[in-house]
Amino acid sequence: MRIDILTLFPEIALAPLSESIIKRAREKDLVEIHAHNLRDWTTDKHRKTDDYLCGGGQGMLLKPDPIFAAIEELRSDNCQVILMTPQGKQFKQAIAQQLSTAPHLIILCGHYEGVDHRVIEQLVDIELSIGDYVLTNGAIAAAVVTDAIVRLIPGALGDQRSHQEESFTDPNMLEAPAYTKPNTFRDMKVPDLLLSGNHKKIDAWKKEKALERTRQNRPDLLQ
Amino acid sequence: MRIDILTLFPEIALAPLSESIIKRAREKDLVEIHAHNLRDWTTDKHRKTDDYLCGGGQGMLLKPDPIFAAIEELRSDNCQVILMTPQGKQFKQAIAQQLSTAPHLIILCGHYEGVDHRVIEQLVDIELSIGDYVLTNGAIAAAVVTDAIVRLIPGALGDQRSHQEESFTDPNMLEAPAYTKPNTFRDMKVPDLLLSGNHKKIDAWKKEKALERTRQNRPDLLQ
Repeated sequence: MRIDILTLFPEIALAPLSESIIKRAREKDLVEIHAHNLRDWTTDKHRKTDDYLCGGGQGMLLKPDPIFAAIEELRSDNCQVILMTPQGKQFKQAIAQQLSTAPHLIILCGHYEGVDHRVIEQLVDIELSIGDYVLTNGAIAAAVVTDAIVRLIPGALGDQRSHQEESFTDPNMLEAPAYTKPNTFRDMKVPDLLLSGNHKKIDAWKKEKALERTRQNRPDLLQ
Repeated sequence: MRIDILTLFPEIALAPLSESIIKRAREKDLVEIHAHNLRDWTTDKHRKTDDYLCGGGQGMLLKPDPIFAAIEELRSDNCQVILMTPQGKQFKQAIAQQLSTAPHLIILCGHYEGVDHRVIEQLVDIELSIGDYVLTNGAIAAAVVTDAIVRLIPGALGDQRSHQEESFTDPNMLEAPAYTKPNTFRDMKVPDLLLSGNHKKIDAWKKEKALERTRQNRPDLLQ
């Protein structure tokens, strides 16, 4: 897989993808990740990438010309172009799964008030939002999406464990509370049941606690 | 405001917060951001931070002892402790607004299968999730939350523009498509109406298009 990130802040996008699991996936050639500075496709002296909104409104918008030039240079035949924008569909684990089998992704990062709509109509295949909050720029969002996708590439997680017990494999239920050693830390004990070896009862406890936690933190998932 | 991020990967959390708007907010002393390596609070030779799950299950969990030691050292009287975890409440713009007035936040980053539940019960005030997807670690999520919070501190956005036209100021409506110069790019024209100067009609167009886009990309917001 190849991922090209197109942004005004290549370092913001790339730095979080240069350690730990994603670093190793890149070293194992499971994925090639490049971050490009959109300014490299400007043609004017001031390397201007933004301009005022047509029809009024505050803030600046990314201009179409450098983005068209960049994507036309970077794209390949089997390429999907993603735009990171608060106006996009919600990025979810199912979308990460789908995208993890793609041969080539270009991730365009929104900035300022967004991008000229002609870019979206002509070049963008998928508009994605990582959540209902506003960020200073889309480069962090691109890092989030890339991280979630790359870890799903077979071989990326060192221990090759199944993803079955993971959060959002059942997208409608959070995980139960979990404990590790020591069995007693200060005066706080791991629940006796978890140390009992009775796996039938432990499974029932986990299901009950998972439901409890989902009700408390994510009642929306149960609707 | 002071933000302490506690993680196994301080660079992943800190790098995206070292450029552009957040960098300038730090230079202007609007916020002090520190990222700490959880391993600095281990006491064993191997600097071990994780251990097996009690009661079975795959993967490793963050141990309680280094986390208790770290948070007890870092916390202050007016401090809120946030845990980044897929099991948390959904981080949204309203939560970013609330947290942007806090004097001191400690953001603990989950890793592996999560953290020992005694940490959550004793130390954590808010469990937050940035979205319904799985990341390799919580450090990127901590950067997302920090970015969203810090840009809301008065003075952080250089132009001091109001946040009124921003996405999610009306949390139930996306923004309308937007255009900038040139009026004609290749054969693609900015809609004539946006160049007409008729602001009443432009506002009506924006409302209609915003609704259309919301129906298409985020029907959940309209329910």
